[in-house]
Amino acid sequence: MMDVFEAATKRMEVKDYKDKPVPTEIIQKILEAGRLSPSAMNMQPWSFIVVRDRNALRMIGELSPTGKYIAGAAFAIAIAVNPDDKWYQVDTARAAQSMMLVAWSLGVGSRWVGGIERDEVKKLLKIPERLQLLTVLPFGYPKHSAKGVKNRKPLQQVAFLEKYGEPWSKQTEQTSQTL
Amino acid sequence: MMDVFEAATKRMEVKDYKDKPVPTEIIQKILEAGRLSPSAMNMQPWSFIVVRDRNALRMIGELSPTGKYIAGAAFAIAIAVNPDDKWYQVDTARAAQSMMLVAWSLGVGSRWVGGIERDEVKKLLKIPERLQLLTVLPFGYPKHSAKGVKNRKPLQQVAFLEKYGEPWSKQTEQTSQTL
Repeated sequence: MMDVFEAATKRMEVKDYKDKPVPTEIIQKILEAGRLSPSAMNMQPWSFIVVRDRNALRMIGELSPTGKYIAGAAFAIAIAVNPDDKWYQVDTARAAQSMMLVAWSLGVGSRWVGGIERDEVKKLLKIPERLQLLTVLPFGYPKHSAKGVKNRKPLQQVAFLEKYGEPWSKQTEQTSQTL
Repeated sequence: MMDVFEAATKRMEVKDYKDKPVPTEIIQKILEAGRLSPSAMNMQPWSFIVVRDRNALRMIGELSPTGKYIAGAAFAIAIAVNPDDKWYQVDTARAAQSMMLVAWSLGVGSRWVGGIERDEVKKLLKIPERLQLLTVLPFGYPKHSAKGVKNRKPLQQVAFLEKYGEPWSKQTEQTSQTL
């Protein structure tokens, strides 16, 4: 069991994976997290293709300029989406985030890969023309300790109260100790 | 504490809220979940404007054809994004999903609102021209029991193994009992 706040705030993007398979039960849970995610008009614009075959993972890695490490993943999930649905990017990214958080809570790292030769990977995975390949998410047990300090803008730069630019932080001076 | 898998698979979109404020500590945790989310090149393309003022919530509700219920939220978070960042939709949707899951784990419901008169709401919240209003997320304690059966496609329609169209479900016949 892992608390949601802990997972959401501590999860790191992981690209180096142990040479150790991830049990089917865990992959199944990750898929369920995606399947049960909400979407506009309940369109569920996604398909999830689980890739475990080492040769296929290597080929996808070669076809991914920013995701060569897919080659070393225990498995990957290619996400194909229906671009006719206006909200397909947002809805599917939400589903993917749920999947990645569930994976993390079960000890499995993952990372969003953006730079992919999509047409080639679509052919490899027999994804129909009409669908778009949104991303390929590699998963695996982290090779290195996945604890780290996150380099993020401070809250006062990204959170405001009532109007853009008005400080949220005033609200929290008295409560920040408890977090 | 709520387990990530439970939150990801049981969370419902909620639009009816109790007339009960949400403590600042909880809003702070929700904001932290967004702030610490990953993004392409660590661009962090998001700003979060917390709206608690009842009049502002009512006005945003009026300006949201598919989100009139924003008027009755305990608070809302308007999310402004930098559209120069290629991955702003995906990255910010991931951050939003983390925020909504953390809220859920703390008993707070929320819902993605798509239909908003964005230019008007941007003016109201003094969001700069150059930013886009991605969504306004209303939050609040659910008025009704938020348990329900989810109406989703079965896993065999959305999950495949190695190639699009090849059944994933064969893999899981022996393990589905344990879930």
